[in-house]
Amino acid sequence: MRSALSLTLAIATAGAALPLRAQAPDTASIDVRYRAVADRLVDAALADSSAWQRLAELTDRFGNRISGSESLERAIDWMLDRMRSDGLEHVRGERAMVPHWVRGAESVELIEPRRTRLPMLGLGGSIGTPKEGITAPVLVVSDYDELTARAAEARGKIVLFDAPYVNYGVTVQYRAHGAVAAAKVGAVAALLRSVSPFEMREPHTGATYYDSTVKPIPFAAISIEDAAMLHRMQLRGQSVVVQLKMEAHMLPDAPSRNAVAEITGSTNPDEVVVMGGHSDSWDVGTGAMDDGGGVIVAWEALRLMKRLGLRPRRTVRVVAWVNEENGDRGGEAYRDAHAADLARHVLAIESDGGVFRPSGFGFSGSDSALAIVRRVGRLLARIGADTISRGGGGTDIGPIMERGVPGMGLNTEGSRYFWYHHSDADTVDKLDPHEMAECVATMAVMAYVVADLPEPLPRGTVQAP
Amino acid sequence: MRSALSLTLAIATAGAALPLRAQAPDTASIDVRYRAVADRLVDAALADSSAWQRLAELTDRFGNRISGSESLERAIDWMLDRMRSDGLEHVRGERAMVPHWVRGAESVELIEPRRTRLPMLGLGGSIGTPKEGITAPVLVVSDYDELTARAAEARGKIVLFDAPYVNYGVTVQYRAHGAVAAAKVGAVAALLRSVSPFEMREPHTGATYYDSTVKPIPFAAISIEDAAMLHRMQLRGQSVVVQLKMEAHMLPDAPSRNAVAEITGSTNPDEVVVMGGHSDSWDVGTGAMDDGGGVIVAWEALRLMKRLGLRPRRTVRVVAWVNEENGDRGGEAYRDAHAADLARHVLAIESDGGVFRPSGFGFSGSDSALAIVRRVGRLLARIGADTISRGGGGTDIGPIMERGVPGMGLNTEGSRYFWYHHSDADTVDKLDPHEMAECVATMAVMAYVVADLPEPLPRGTVQAP
Repeated sequence: MRSALSLTLAIATAGAALPLRAQAPDTASIDVRYRAVADRLVDAALADSSAWQRLAELTDRFGNRISGSESLERAIDWMLDRMRSDGLEHVRGERAMVPHWVRGAESVELIEPRRTRLPMLGLGGSIGTPKEGITAPVLVVSDYDELTARAAEARGKIVLFDAPYVNYGVTVQYRAHGAVAAAKVGAVAALLRSVSPFEMREPHTGATYYDSTVKPIPFAAISIEDAAMLHRMQLRGQSVVVQLKMEAHMLPDAPSRNAVAEITGSTNPDEVVVMGGHSDSWDVGTGAMDDGGGVIVAWEALRLMKRLGLRPRRTVRVVAWVNEENGDRGGEAYRDAHAADLARHVLAIESDGGVFRPSGFGFSGSDSALAIVRRVGRLLARIGADTISRGGGGTDIGPIMERGVPGMGLNTEGSRYFWYHHSDADTVDKLDPHEMAECVATMAVMAYVVADLPEPLPRGTVQAP
Repeated sequence: MRSALSLTLAIATAGAALPLRAQAPDTASIDVRYRAVADRLVDAALADSSAWQRLAELTDRFGNRISGSESLERAIDWMLDRMRSDGLEHVRGERAMVPHWVRGAESVELIEPRRTRLPMLGLGGSIGTPKEGITAPVLVVSDYDELTARAAEARGKIVLFDAPYVNYGVTVQYRAHGAVAAAKVGAVAALLRSVSPFEMREPHTGATYYDSTVKPIPFAAISIEDAAMLHRMQLRGQSVVVQLKMEAHMLPDAPSRNAVAEITGSTNPDEVVVMGGHSDSWDVGTGAMDDGGGVIVAWEALRLMKRLGLRPRRTVRVVAWVNEENGDRGGEAYRDAHAADLARHVLAIESDGGVFRPSGFGFSGSDSALAIVRRVGRLLARIGADTISRGGGGTDIGPIMERGVPGMGLNTEGSRYFWYHHSDADTVDKLDPHEMAECVATMAVMAYVVADLPEPLPRGTVQAP
C-alpha cells in the first residue's frame, strides 16, 4: 500500500462499456442461490492455515522484493511455479518494465551537539549525496507553514520535517513532497520524521517525489524519537549539525512481470473478475503485510475454488501485480496488455491494506452494482466481513478502474498497519493465521459469486464516493 | 533494571541493628500528623513537569551511559553540577571502580539459505569472535530441555535459543546462562531470541554470564522475528548457516562515582533515608526508562522538599548509583563507604522499573515496619499510589538490604516496560510528564514522612516475602 492519496480514485463515467444483456439480477435471490456455496468456501477457508504458511515461506525464502531486485524476480518465478503445481490455469508472467532504485550504503550521524549515529532509511527514489556526505546545520520545522515562515533560515541547511502523525493520508504529504519544499527555500538536504503513529526508534521508508522545476536534494527518514530529540535541542538553542551520507541512485529500468493465474469461466470465459495484490515491497523487512499477504490471500482464494471443484460462469483471475511501491508499472502494464478486454472485466478486487481481520470491502462503481455487491457481502456476515462501503479500490487496479472497471478494496482491522508499514518490522509474525484465513474466505466468496451471477455487474453511472 | 532475579533479595534478620528508642509510633496518628504536608508535596509535584524535562535534557545531552564510558562520566559531572545549583546539600561523587566492557563493531549475517543481515546486539559481557567471525550451521532449540535432548547435534554449531517470552524473570535465564549451556554441549557460539514480550525487529541486550569451568563462547541477541524465521527454516529441513562477528572485549576497570546529594536532617542528621536509581545504562537507546527516570524522580523528590522548605528530622539522601547493569559496583561501594552508618539507615528506596503511573511500593522489612509504611502509603491514595506490597527492593540497594537496611522498590504500571528495555527504543518519549510527576510525588511523600516520623522504622525480625 503506497498512499491513501492514490486510493481515492477518479472514477470515470463508463456507462456503455459492458453490453447490458438484461436487467440486473434480483438481489434477493443471491442469498437463496449462493448461501450454500458461500458457506462451503468459508468453512473450507477457515479449516486450514495454509495462507499464513505460504506467506511465511514466500517471505522467508526471498525476503524483501524491491522492483529491479533479484529477490523479486526469484519470488515471481517461485509464485508461477507454485501456481502451476496448484493446478491453476493459464499461469503466466506478463511483462512489465520497472524502475530500479538502489539504496546502497547510507547513514545519518549527529555531529553537534554530540556525536551519535541515528537509525535512518533513505526515502525511495531519493538521489544520493556526494561521497563525503552532506554536513550542515539542521532547521527543524513542524509543518510546511513553519517552513514558509522560516524560509530565510533554511538556505544551506538540512531541513527536518518533524510533522506529528495525523493519519497516513495527511502526514505522508511530507514524505511525498518534503524534498521539493525544502529545496525551494535553499536547503541542501532534507530529513523526515517517519510517517507512523507508533514509536520504536524504527525508521519507515516510502516513495518521495521530485519536481522537474526544482533541483533535487537527498531525503531520508529518521525515527520519531530522534526527530523529537533534534527538535528539543533546537528549542534549547543548541546548534544541531548532522552528516547525511547516501549512495542511493537509479539504474535503467529492469524487466519484471505480473504473475497471473486463472480458473476459466464455464460459460462466459471472456468475462473476468480479477483480484490480487502486489508482489514487490520496499527493500526493508520482508514485505509480509505490504503486500505479500494481499497476493497470498487472493491466490489462496482461487486455489480454494479449485480445491472445492468450483468453476463459476466467468473467469476468475489472480494477479500479483509488480511495482506498486514506486511506479505502478504493473497496474499500467496490465491495463495495456488487456486493453481490448477491459470492457469485459466485471470487477477488480485488490487487497493492499494488510490481511488482518476482514470487515468487508470498499466499492467504487454504480449504485446498482453497489446494491448487488452489498447483497453478496451479506453472505459474509457470519465472519463479520459484510460491510460494503462506498469508495475503494487500490493502486494496482487504479489504471483499469480509470477505464471503467468497477473496483473494490479489501478492508481489514488495520489499527496497527502503520506501526510496521515500510519498516524492518513488516514480517509475517504480525499476521494471524486465522485472520488470514478469514481474508481468504472473504475474497473467495466475493470473487466467486460476482463471477457466477447470471448477469455481469451493471456499470451504469458512477457516483463519487 | 537488570533482572527480576536480583530483586528477590535474601533479607537477613537484622534485629538489633538500630537502637530501639521507643515503641513504634501510633500508626493512626500518621494521617493526622502528615496529611497536610503530603498534600503539599503531591500538589507541588503535579503542578510541574520538570522531571520529564530534566530527563529529556540528561538523555539528549549524554545519550546512553554504559559503565566505563565517557558519556557516563560527563553525565555524572552534569548531575553533580545541577545538584549543587539546585541548592542541595553535601553534594559529592563517591568513588567506585566499574567494569569496562566495550561492544565494538558486530554483525550477524545469514549465509544459508539466503544472504541477509539480521539486526543484532551482542550481550553485555560477551567475549568477541575472531576477526574473520564464526561461520557455522545453526541449531535452533526452544528451551534447555530441547538442548539437552539434542546435545549430540550441537557440537561445532551456533545454538539459537528461541525461547518464547513467559515473563522477564523466567525467560532471562536464557540470556544469563545460555552461553554456558551451549558451550557445555560443544557449540562454538550462541544466539538468543531477544527477551521481550513485543516484536518490532528490535534486538534487546543485557548481561550474560560465564562459568569458570566452561570455555566462554560469544553470545548475541537477534530479534524475535528473526529467531522465529530461523526456526521455521530448520523445521522445513533447510540448512541454516550464519556468520557472527563481534569485537566485544573487556578493558581494565575504570573509575566512576555514585552521585550523592542530601537534605540534612533537622534533629537526627545521622539517621538516613536513602533513595535513588542508577546512572549507568546499556550502550543502546538513551537509558531513559532504565534508569535515567529512576534517578531523576528521586532527585526531583528531594528538590521538591527543598523548594517547599521542608527539612525532616532525619537526613534524606539521593544517590545515583553507578554500574547497576553489569556489576553492582555502585551499590557495593555505597555499602562499603557507609558501613559504619548502615545501622542508622532507616530506609532505602529504589526506582528501577520505569517511571510510569505509580501504584505504590514493594517493601522488605519487619512486619511492624510494614504496618507503618502502609499507613504512610495511605497518604498517596489520592493518586492511586497507596498499595504497599510485601517484598521488594532493587539491585543497587541490595548490598545494604543484606546488611539489614529495610528496602523498598517503587512499583509502576509497567506493562510496556519490557517492550523497550535494553533496546534502542528506550528513550524519553516513552514516558509521560504527568506520570513522572506522580512518581516524584510518591517518592517524596514516602521519603519525607519516613524521615520525619518521631521514631525510626523498627527493624525487628524480617519475614521472607
